[in-house]
Amino acid sequence: MNPSISSRLSSLRLFLKDHGLNGWIVPTADPHLSEYVDEHYAFRKWLSGFTGSAGSLLVTEDAAALITDSRYWVQAEQQLEGSEIKLVKLNQSYAEDSADWFAAHLKPNECVGICSELISGKDAKNYARIFAEKHLLLSLIRQAPEETIWEDRPARTERPVFDHRVSPRSRQQKLTALQEALKKAKADYLLTAKLDDIAWIFNLRGSDVPDNPVFYAYALIPAKGTSTLFINEEKIPTELRLLLAKEAVSLAPYHSVGQVLSSLTSGTVLADPDEINASLHSHLSDQVSLLELPNPIERMKALKTLEEIHLISEAMLKDGIALVQFFAWLDRNLGKEEMTEQSVAEKLLAYRKSLPGYVSLSFETISAFGPNAALPHYQPDKSGGALIKGSGFLLIDSGAQFPEGTTDITRTKLIGEATDLMKEDYTAVLRANIRLAMAVFPDGISSQILDPLAREPIWQHFANFGHGTGHGVGFFLNVHEGPQRISYPRISPRTDAFISKETAMSEGMVTSDEPGIYRPGRWGIRIENLVAAEFAEENEFGRFLKFKTLTLCPIDLSAVIPERLQPDEKKWLNEYHALVRQKVLPHIHDERTIVWLEWNTREI
Amino acid sequence: MNPSISSRLSSLRLFLKDHGLNGWIVPTADPHLSEYVDEHYAFRKWLSGFTGSAGSLLVTEDAAALITDSRYWVQAEQQLEGSEIKLVKLNQSYAEDSADWFAAHLKPNECVGICSELISGKDAKNYARIFAEKHLLLSLIRQAPEETIWEDRPARTERPVFDHRVSPRSRQQKLTALQEALKKAKADYLLTAKLDDIAWIFNLRGSDVPDNPVFYAYALIPAKGTSTLFINEEKIPTELRLLLAKEAVSLAPYHSVGQVLSSLTSGTVLADPDEINASLHSHLSDQVSLLELPNPIERMKALKTLEEIHLISEAMLKDGIALVQFFAWLDRNLGKEEMTEQSVAEKLLAYRKSLPGYVSLSFETISAFGPNAALPHYQPDKSGGALIKGSGFLLIDSGAQFPEGTTDITRTKLIGEATDLMKEDYTAVLRANIRLAMAVFPDGISSQILDPLAREPIWQHFANFGHGTGHGVGFFLNVHEGPQRISYPRISPRTDAFISKETAMSEGMVTSDEPGIYRPGRWGIRIENLVAAEFAEENEFGRFLKFKTLTLCPIDLSAVIPERLQPDEKKWLNEYHALVRQKVLPHIHDERTIVWLEWNTREI
Repeated sequence: MNPSISSRLSSLRLFLKDHGLNGWIVPTADPHLSEYVDEHYAFRKWLSGFTGSAGSLLVTEDAAALITDSRYWVQAEQQLEGSEIKLVKLNQSYAEDSADWFAAHLKPNECVGICSELISGKDAKNYARIFAEKHLLLSLIRQAPEETIWEDRPARTERPVFDHRVSPRSRQQKLTALQEALKKAKADYLLTAKLDDIAWIFNLRGSDVPDNPVFYAYALIPAKGTSTLFINEEKIPTELRLLLAKEAVSLAPYHSVGQVLSSLTSGTVLADPDEINASLHSHLSDQVSLLELPNPIERMKALKTLEEIHLISEAMLKDGIALVQFFAWLDRNLGKEEMTEQSVAEKLLAYRKSLPGYVSLSFETISAFGPNAALPHYQPDKSGGALIKGSGFLLIDSGAQFPEGTTDITRTKLIGEATDLMKEDYTAVLRANIRLAMAVFPDGISSQILDPLAREPIWQHFANFGHGTGHGVGFFLNVHEGPQRISYPRISPRTDAFISKETAMSEGMVTSDEPGIYRPGRWGIRIENLVAAEFAEENEFGRFLKFKTLTLCPIDLSAVIPERLQPDEKKWLNEYHALVRQKVLPHIHDERTIVWLEWNTREI
Repeated sequence: MNPSISSRLSSLRLFLKDHGLNGWIVPTADPHLSEYVDEHYAFRKWLSGFTGSAGSLLVTEDAAALITDSRYWVQAEQQLEGSEIKLVKLNQSYAEDSADWFAAHLKPNECVGICSELISGKDAKNYARIFAEKHLLLSLIRQAPEETIWEDRPARTERPVFDHRVSPRSRQQKLTALQEALKKAKADYLLTAKLDDIAWIFNLRGSDVPDNPVFYAYALIPAKGTSTLFINEEKIPTELRLLLAKEAVSLAPYHSVGQVLSSLTSGTVLADPDEINASLHSHLSDQVSLLELPNPIERMKALKTLEEIHLISEAMLKDGIALVQFFAWLDRNLGKEEMTEQSVAEKLLAYRKSLPGYVSLSFETISAFGPNAALPHYQPDKSGGALIKGSGFLLIDSGAQFPEGTTDITRTKLIGEATDLMKEDYTAVLRANIRLAMAVFPDGISSQILDPLAREPIWQHFANFGHGTGHGVGFFLNVHEGPQRISYPRISPRTDAFISKETAMSEGMVTSDEPGIYRPGRWGIRIENLVAAEFAEENEFGRFLKFKTLTLCPIDLSAVIPERLQPDEKKWLNEYHALVRQKVLPHIHDERTIVWLEWNTREI
């Protein structure tokens, strides 16, 4: 038995006893329901010893389990060994699998608690319904056990907030547009807890969450008048504080949000049930009507203006310069010096850091060689990871934050020799990337159903991949941003209906295009560019959009089977490489790198 | 004022008064909620004078309106002229538009009736909810006004029922499989009113509905024991009646279904809420539990066996022989004799009728020349329609019923000369047809989202079409059959979710592949083949399916721009034509037709 895990679980069980509860759920979440969770909120990790980025810990008086998804099963088995915590493999959904587990470990009508700050209002309802079907009660508890039982809990990261001055849309413009949207929706207020939405609407940035330029805050924005930002005021420099006051943004203490919500005595509050935690919900009095709709900021933020896309293109050019220098260095030095997955990631970081305005990575770099690349979310051990030698694909998925934009790019480089199947896989992935990049589609079509256009060349090759083809990308914000996704919807076997929400693909949306093929134990390939949806044509059939590829970096040609490309695909590839050469070459001054760039953007 | 319409509406208003109602809805429906409605059920047509295949008549004490969709707006304006009935253009949905109209013509809390036999249980709930939002009541009335006020109402077609002997799956096999499905769903009975499902499960056919080999009946099938077919017994020959009795199918009078349902005092009845009319629903007592799920017959019927597909291919060959003879005749005689849209349709019918086993058309032939072809559902005037002369596209969409299968094919033939845009449109439609025919996709993927694969070459050409790309086709049954469809789902602007149900595309499904381009006032193009989903490959990525094209008829090459076809598309086309030649040629004995077939299946 792991003694610290064991005593931590005992403390939690005392907490349960004190509160008259029979079970407890520890999700991986913060009160803002962020994708990435700060160490301060890593209670599940502290309690269980499991370090993966997703999972829920379930605890009763005499049992404990961790549910997580297939990415983490091997790791969880290892990390839970020696503790009483059993791994439960995620099968249906966290809600259903949790309910099943508690039903097997509790008696009918016993009660399971969860901290109301760490679950969305919508999920809370959903859990309660599913638990009720299993004759269990779900209780939302405001008091979090982590506040009392977690000794040495790390303080929350609280770094300075700054003005995002390069934003072409001013704070006032954005707030006015949002207020118009609120009036149209007949809402008196928008309540939001989503960190990137808050950063975006106020043109503010921070660095509280690693690689995401956001800061902890809530916001209450009225359809008319002064907005309130709930934030630790000390994070905001005095000058910026004065500016915000002048622009009708008032500040209030971070923790006062509940009290302010409780004090509302009338009006309609628009709140997205997916993003507002159940504790916030519970502070809204019955006199207030709640309008549960998608947060309008999500779509406003996704629809980048031409000026924003112009700035993003500048970030792409910077990133392209770093990547070209990096890959030229790699080709020059491979075999001459020892390289590991981690050392090349650090080299790439060094090139990026040398660029003007570089802020941070936009996510932890994935640098994976050979069989490691078959794990789409692999990250090398900080001490080095695999040696890069012999033959195999080196997959590098990385990105950076610049004030002009957020980048996200994957290149897969052939090291040594490729087998026929490696070349066929690589060519199929390249074709998939190009087919989506070349797509033309009616304005407003569901972003999700563009997915088969990318997948078809991979399906023709009798292969597939288990992640989406595209996600939205922020404007100097989160590298994963909604609402659009390119990812074909699955059918629920129970209801014969799609499970997911849909979003119209519209002009200005910046989305990744990242098909792949992964052969476990052998290799993995992914090619990723960012694309922006732009106007293509308007005629008697309506309005059509197309994609403009923003990323500027050569795509490795050494594993391409040119005869397998359709003529229009080959034309696209040659034109893309001509563009990369034209844009990047003027910024390269090292003769060897110039030669490398010319060769790697050659016509095929 | 049209005196007969006026007096008919007066009779309906007397009926309303007698029943204490303020309004009435006359939908286009029969008690089986069939796609095609017999003259006996054409009450809306008799009352309004409007002959279109879709629409609802709304009547109050002092107003009347007809709602119909855009296909019929011109026709409805003409046919309603001189009556008091106003055209309402279908905008949101029949339910919402009806509620809006009544809300504008009635006072709050007034009551609108509809015959409970002519609306599904699900629609009835939906209408009631929407009417309630507008402060109106909806009342489901068992007594139909058509029974009392419609003088000279045509009798319902009641033709003999016969055994579908060529079916490779026996009645017993099908019933056993269905009973297994019922047990699995924990249902004691299946109640179904859907005519093609009933025909399919009992391997029986009839000819009560034009072009659909079905007969009027209800069925109550228990999870164990004897099934009951509610039918006018006289339709079934004595020998067949004895055979059915031996095979545990008992007969009951058609109109006794309500009484039998009322007499059920326990058990669970599975009934598809989309296909059971509200009157049937109302006969189920409270002691019976209702399980509202898709009717399992729908999917069983859609998954054709290899033997069934083999038989369907025989029907396709027959149809191909007729079409080749027809198009060869057309080319030989064009310019020599006067041809109209109607006369060529009749010529094609004559060739089809000469085939062994020919039963009927599978739908009214669409024969459209020049601008008429821009209306996807155009049908020529029986007296002739447009003359075929000069230049333009002749679009013929037709099909037949054979005991071996149902056919549905569209060819668009260039008459005279084509402009560049006509050729570009034609080539884009051909590419769309081929891309879907060539598709490879994971087993079980939503059939709907295959649609973009077909549309992409048309979107690239900045065009689109307003109908689905594919519908299921029956096995000597209805030409439109569920549950699969190839038709991309639209997003509801209100909820950001898909509006429609989804179906997994599975091995054995026979579906049309019929993209088109329609330029109003100029021309229309559609190319349609039937394809069957079949096994392609199984490997570490799962199971993959592909389509096998079943239709055997040359695709007109005269408007194709060969350079616009991708190499794989050209290869597909040449291989398809080689197959058509190989299969059809041995059955053609006329030398001129042989020469025509060879030329029209030439390699390009």
